[in-house]
Amino acid sequence: MKGFTLWFTGLSGSGKSTLTQAIEPLLLERKINVEILDGDVVRTNLSKGLGFSKEDRDINVRRIGFVANMLSRNGVVAMTAAISPYKAVRDEIRAHTENFVEVYTECSIEELTRRDPKGLYKKALSGEIANFTGISDPYEAPENAEIVVNTEHETLEESLDKIMRSLELMGLIPAGEDQHTSPEEEVVIRDRLQALGYL
Amino acid sequence: MKGFTLWFTGLSGSGKSTLTQAIEPLLLERKINVEILDGDVVRTNLSKGLGFSKEDRDINVRRIGFVANMLSRNGVVAMTAAISPYKAVRDEIRAHTENFVEVYTECSIEELTRRDPKGLYKKALSGEIANFTGISDPYEAPENAEIVVNTEHETLEESLDKIMRSLELMGLIPAGEDQHTSPEEEVVIRDRLQALGYL
Repeated sequence: MKGFTLWFTGLSGSGKSTLTQAIEPLLLERKINVEILDGDVVRTNLSKGLGFSKEDRDINVRRIGFVANMLSRNGVVAMTAAISPYKAVRDEIRAHTENFVEVYTECSIEELTRRDPKGLYKKALSGEIANFTGISDPYEAPENAEIVVNTEHETLEESLDKIMRSLELMGLIPAGEDQHTSPEEEVVIRDRLQALGYL
Repeated sequence: MKGFTLWFTGLSGSGKSTLTQAIEPLLLERKINVEILDGDVVRTNLSKGLGFSKEDRDINVRRIGFVANMLSRNGVVAMTAAISPYKAVRDEIRAHTENFVEVYTECSIEELTRRDPKGLYKKALSGEIANFTGISDPYEAPENAEIVVNTEHETLEESLDKIMRSLELMGLIPAGEDQHTSPEEEVVIRDRLQALGYL
């Protein structure tokens, strides 16, 4: 079994952790070893003491990349769920990671401010929290992510199907029996992967 | 295949890295996935900015433990080669690591000072380097290490045989065809593992 890194990137609250947690049982079902490197778990265990300046964010993200690559090259699927706002660092990790698959969880600031279950966007907008990605700190969206899910307009199921189907088409996981993508979605997925040279 | 963590502990220059590098090809030969978490590589990729105070050493060692456990529980053999001087932290990592095997590389300060290829002991003794484990900083030897190699009195081959044979007896690696341990060594190895409840 080939390992790979499923690297989620997107704003806070855009669904990165939710998606990793929903995907984990689907991969385990197919007898695939999985580890989730969630932003919070990593900050506790690998990056305590780091803050949210560009420099510290980059160090944190590089550490996640270091561990993810170690898992990937040993046949494990590493799913990461850190905001990872800077394109250059993501691309640097891509360059030295075995089977790097980028998943962009797209969602507008308006929608995220509407949801805002932890009140973080409100605090960021009022200036109570500084260096908040998307409000007072930059977020550089990927231009060539292998998978783009729009968590504003898609249901969780649709996003999951898109991710699993993409991984199947890339030959990274065996085809499942429960194929749910519509013919329209299938075309969108194939077009993207073809444009990136995968098919 | 079960993964495990082969945790080397011992003074600087006692042979931790040399042993991990010598074991790696022997495990690869038996189709086992291996990663070496060497002190220096880890300090660069996971612990940049940390110093050599007790607190910083403990953080560094805990991070190595976090990654080693992630690899172990996914069927990989993680070999670590950090001095890891404090018993409490090693035992804490042991408690939450799947298949933790401690290897103590025993060697006297006198012998290490004689070898001293990088001149570190000389500098530590003259006070040029502070917080040097074994000279100006404590080293707490393990009391119940699964494997003890004495790199002062054993050849590299003997130490290697002892480690590989112990792992075979613990059921962590398949028995190899090239069995080199003498009947005397075999008794020593079995006695230790038996006393620890493995056999």
